Amino acid sequence: MELEKISSPADIRKLDIKDLNNLCDELRKVFLVKISARGGHVGPNLGLVEATVALHYVFDTPQDKIVFDVSHQTYIHKMLTGRINAFLYPEAYDDVTGYTNPSESEYDLFTIGHTSTAVSLAGGIAKGRDLSGEKYNVVALVGDGSLSGGEAFEGLDEGATLGSNFIVIVNDNEMSIAENHGGLYGNLARLRETNGMADDNYFTALGYDYFYVEEGNDVAALVETFRKVKNSVRPVVVHIHTDKGHGYAPAEEHKEQFHYTGPFDLTTGKSTPDSGSENYADIFANEMLAQMKANPKVCVLTAGTPGVLGFGPERRKEAGRQFIDVGIAEQEAAAMASGIAKAGARPCFGVVSSFLQRAYDQFSQDIAINGMPVVVNIFYGSLFGMTDVTHLGWFDIALMSNIPGWVFLAPTSVEEYVAMLRWAMAQTDYPVAIRIPGGAIRHESGPVDTDYSALNRYKITRRGSGVAIIGSGTFYELAEQTADLLAARGINATVINPRYLSGVDSEMLETLKNDHQTVITLEDGVLDGGFGEKIARFYGSSNMKVHCYGIEKKFLDRYRPKELLKACGLTAESIAASL
Amino acid sequence: MELEKISSPADIRKLDIKDLNNLCDELRKVFLVKISARGGHVGPNLGLVEATVALHYVFDTPQDKIVFDVSHQTYIHKMLTGRINAFLYPEAYDDVTGYTNPSESEYDLFTIGHTSTAVSLAGGIAKGRDLSGEKYNVVALVGDGSLSGGEAFEGLDEGATLGSNFIVIVNDNEMSIAENHGGLYGNLARLRETNGMADDNYFTALGYDYFYVEEGNDVAALVETFRKVKNSVRPVVVHIHTDKGHGYAPAEEHKEQFHYTGPFDLTTGKSTPDSGSENYADIFANEMLAQMKANPKVCVLTAGTPGVLGFGPERRKEAGRQFIDVGIAEQEAAAMASGIAKAGARPCFGVVSSFLQRAYDQFSQDIAINGMPVVVNIFYGSLFGMTDVTHLGWFDIALMSNIPGWVFLAPTSVEEYVAMLRWAMAQTDYPVAIRIPGGAIRHESGPVDTDYSALNRYKITRRGSGVAIIGSGTFYELAEQTADLLAARGINATVINPRYLSGVDSEMLETLKNDHQTVITLEDGVLDGGFGEKIARFYGSSNMKVHCYGIEKKFLDRYRPKELLKACGLTAESIAASL
Repeated sequence: MELEKISSPADIRKLDIKDLNNLCDELRKVFLVKISARGGHVGPNLGLVEATVALHYVFDTPQDKIVFDVSHQTYIHKMLTGRINAFLYPEAYDDVTGYTNPSESEYDLFTIGHTSTAVSLAGGIAKGRDLSGEKYNVVALVGDGSLSGGEAFEGLDEGATLGSNFIVIVNDNEMSIAENHGGLYGNLARLRETNGMADDNYFTALGYDYFYVEEGNDVAALVETFRKVKNSVRPVVVHIHTDKGHGYAPAEEHKEQFHYTGPFDLTTGKSTPDSGSENYADIFANEMLAQMKANPKVCVLTAGTPGVLGFGPERRKEAGRQFIDVGIAEQEAAAMASGIAKAGARPCFGVVSSFLQRAYDQFSQDIAINGMPVVVNIFYGSLFGMTDVTHLGWFDIALMSNIPGWVFLAPTSVEEYVAMLRWAMAQTDYPVAIRIPGGAIRHESGPVDTDYSALNRYKITRRGSGVAIIGSGTFYELAEQTADLLAARGINATVINPRYLSGVDSEMLETLKNDHQTVITLEDGVLDGGFGEKIARFYGSSNMKVHCYGIEKKFLDRYRPKELLKACGLTAESIAASL
Repeated sequence: MELEKISSPADIRKLDIKDLNNLCDELRKVFLVKISARGGHVGPNLGLVEATVALHYVFDTPQDKIVFDVSHQTYIHKMLTGRINAFLYPEAYDDVTGYTNPSESEYDLFTIGHTSTAVSLAGGIAKGRDLSGEKYNVVALVGDGSLSGGEAFEGLDEGATLGSNFIVIVNDNEMSIAENHGGLYGNLARLRETNGMADDNYFTALGYDYFYVEEGNDVAALVETFRKVKNSVRPVVVHIHTDKGHGYAPAEEHKEQFHYTGPFDLTTGKSTPDSGSENYADIFANEMLAQMKANPKVCVLTAGTPGVLGFGPERRKEAGRQFIDVGIAEQEAAAMASGIAKAGARPCFGVVSSFLQRAYDQFSQDIAINGMPVVVNIFYGSLFGMTDVTHLGWFDIALMSNIPGWVFLAPTSVEEYVAMLRWAMAQTDYPVAIRIPGGAIRHESGPVDTDYSALNRYKITRRGSGVAIIGSGTFYELAEQTADLLAARGINATVINPRYLSGVDSEMLETLKNDHQTVITLEDGVLDGGFGEKIARFYGSSNMKVHCYGIEKKFLDRYRPKELLKACGLTAESIAASL
């Protein structure tokens, strides 16, 4: 059929089942043209073409509800639910996000971007349906990788007791972003090997009925099984074995690389050649590889995102057992790191800012209360990080700086970052979090301090009077630029690199009162609960005027960093003009 | 033997195995005398007497490491590890906390009070041991109730892959604090019924070797099995079936009541008669029972602590399927509530302040980004709440008030609380969190507002000039008292009930500039990231002086509320004197 005529799943339900294969081919072709031009999640979507078609063919969406975990595998779903133009026409490519989004379509239940949530959310819908006395199917689609997250377990555990229609599709493509880690994956492998008949079964142990579909890229097989479970009156798991990257040879072969990629050549599968430009992932990985070689007790932990940390397959191999991927399980990474430190080894956990908040309780209870010297590296904690509403890197300052016990450092340059990382790993007195700066990479012209054990000592890098600008992390350079502009106006501003986000340098701030009337704070995060407010409180009862610059507390989706900077007044011109 | 002579587990290892039964009897008797006088966790400790003795008898503690989940079942462990005097002698009763505590003893690995963390922490120790090239046994002891938490799953999943010694003891007493909830408990029941031979096995599915001990209160049976797994070179689960409250008839009979209790009469098991005094648990439960009766779509959720919400067995029965206990799984409760709201029903989640932080990501992603009208009631969010370091109720303001989208309300009285709860449940525009005030119950003398839909409107309750005191939540009354003291000095202070912790009433604060020079903020939480700092930032660039009162950012253990108030200057005399 002609894809542009698909205005809703009702259109595909008119098709004969044997025509669905052609439909899948067409969808895959269109998908590949857009994704090769724009980049995005390649493998997860290619593996799920047939299952997505089969789901909408069998279930009466939107009356029946499908919740997609992580939802980066919903491009095909979008093509079938009235949004085909955003895949057919380059000028409409940006009309859809890379995740489900209720403001785009009634077929999208939630805005989702974090892993392991769909089973819980869908379980809630099923419960709400039952309380409301309504009847419809509720389906959660969750990947094998996502099952490593605790919330997915909690959702399965509770969902098993619902006693009514609740269908969990486990999309087993034998991969997380990289390879899977965890005992559960042994069970999934045994289920695959036995066509679902293994002695042990994680899902039936939890109380689910269970169906296995080996041919997860065979639309007819999927339709047949989905029909069996439709209108089920009790919780059921359908375990489908799919092929990540299916139907596109480069993605089938290089599964990790094609999980998410930038634009690539459709014929060869080659990405735009890596510019080889300097980046913090490489800086982190090289530094930690060196530390691991020098000390067998040093280890690096990730919760399912090794690539973010610069640990691709080769570096993982080089690190051996000193590199630990716990699966998409931030709670485990944080708590396990505490145990590792307790045993006298030296754990270093790297995590994306937006995922840091999945382990708040562990940072507080398992690490801080116990004073364990765990080191956390926060990636993408910046408005220059990811711009999807589900992946904002703005909230970690308010989170980490307000838990007692943590030393929270904000380096401003590569050299300062490496020095802080080395100090953090060498000391055993405190848990230390380091916020990797965003934006353009900055280098230090002079030497940097190597010892950060005198806590909360800010550094005056330019001594002036009248106005002091405290530029934290990413925005240290903005402080310098503002001071330069002010200098041109004859104002000799003081510039301060605070270095510590977790405390106030009372002594220094006190001395500023002698010859300053105004303090400006700059932070690459939300103002509420953040760094600047601590300075404002410190000076609250004095004559010092404090202006805090940062991001307003709200959710933005797919914002443009430069525009956001302007909207927040975070430009040298704007700050200088306000004085 | 004479208990006072037990200075370490080495002393009990000299005993013949048949003498261990007598030892258990003695330990149980001494435990009961103290616990009946002081209160504490009764059932969990009684059920674990034999297992604790057997663990220390078989394993070479402290070289071998035992991590106790939640650690409220460690009273017997403390008696065996050099702290017997704190159980024998009333004057020494306070020498130990109710949880493991490394500052008390090298036999205590971590300070633990939150559920579901032990498997992860112990897994970390095992990994750190292996990286360090050392050899010893690592044991995690975890209750069946704790297995409902996602972190416990993550820990089991990762632990199964360690490939070396890692022993998980599952203490199955068929109870959480109240009854268990979740599909997993069906599997545990089938394992108990089949002496561990059921077809499905959650633990072997995850890759563990597995042993079952039906007689979990038979010390010889436990010793025999622990000896089998000691020095195991791969991960193993020992599933022991214990009897919560074992050996004390009232606790065996009333398991939920005796999970944790205040002092009681040892002969009869009767608690000091309930004074029947007014409390927020009853107020919440009665209000919600009325709402549930009026509307079948209204439901109340708890994550394993129904008693905290005032929902004892009778009220749970009355609420029927409208009361949902998801197990000790705060992530699930929050995400499921979002799904319930999505389906058009009305979820109300009650949670202890200290456990709120276990679902930060779900409050942000699953609820706030999706704008789902979930209502959260925060219990014990106050310095008058729980005083153990692992259960502090001080951090929820900084957490909840800084997530975009939430309306965070701080009632100051019973009437205001009920009005806010009714408004929150009736509206569907926002997720709403309500912080139940601490300290003495306060009543309103006049009518209260019933509509809170005009967000961030503070209320001036006493109009003065010069000084304005913003008294939030618990401390509204302190604002009144301070104003009274100032009035006696001829200062006619303004008193403000801010009602909203999630935003600033810019308009009102702006008008205060006309005739006020000083604003005082009072909050029942940590200052860092809290309410007062928002006010300080607002006035940062003006001439208004702002003094913020609250709790300093640090961990305290078993503090005395009145002393802490004084230390923080949170008395009317102190605040008034500072002006």
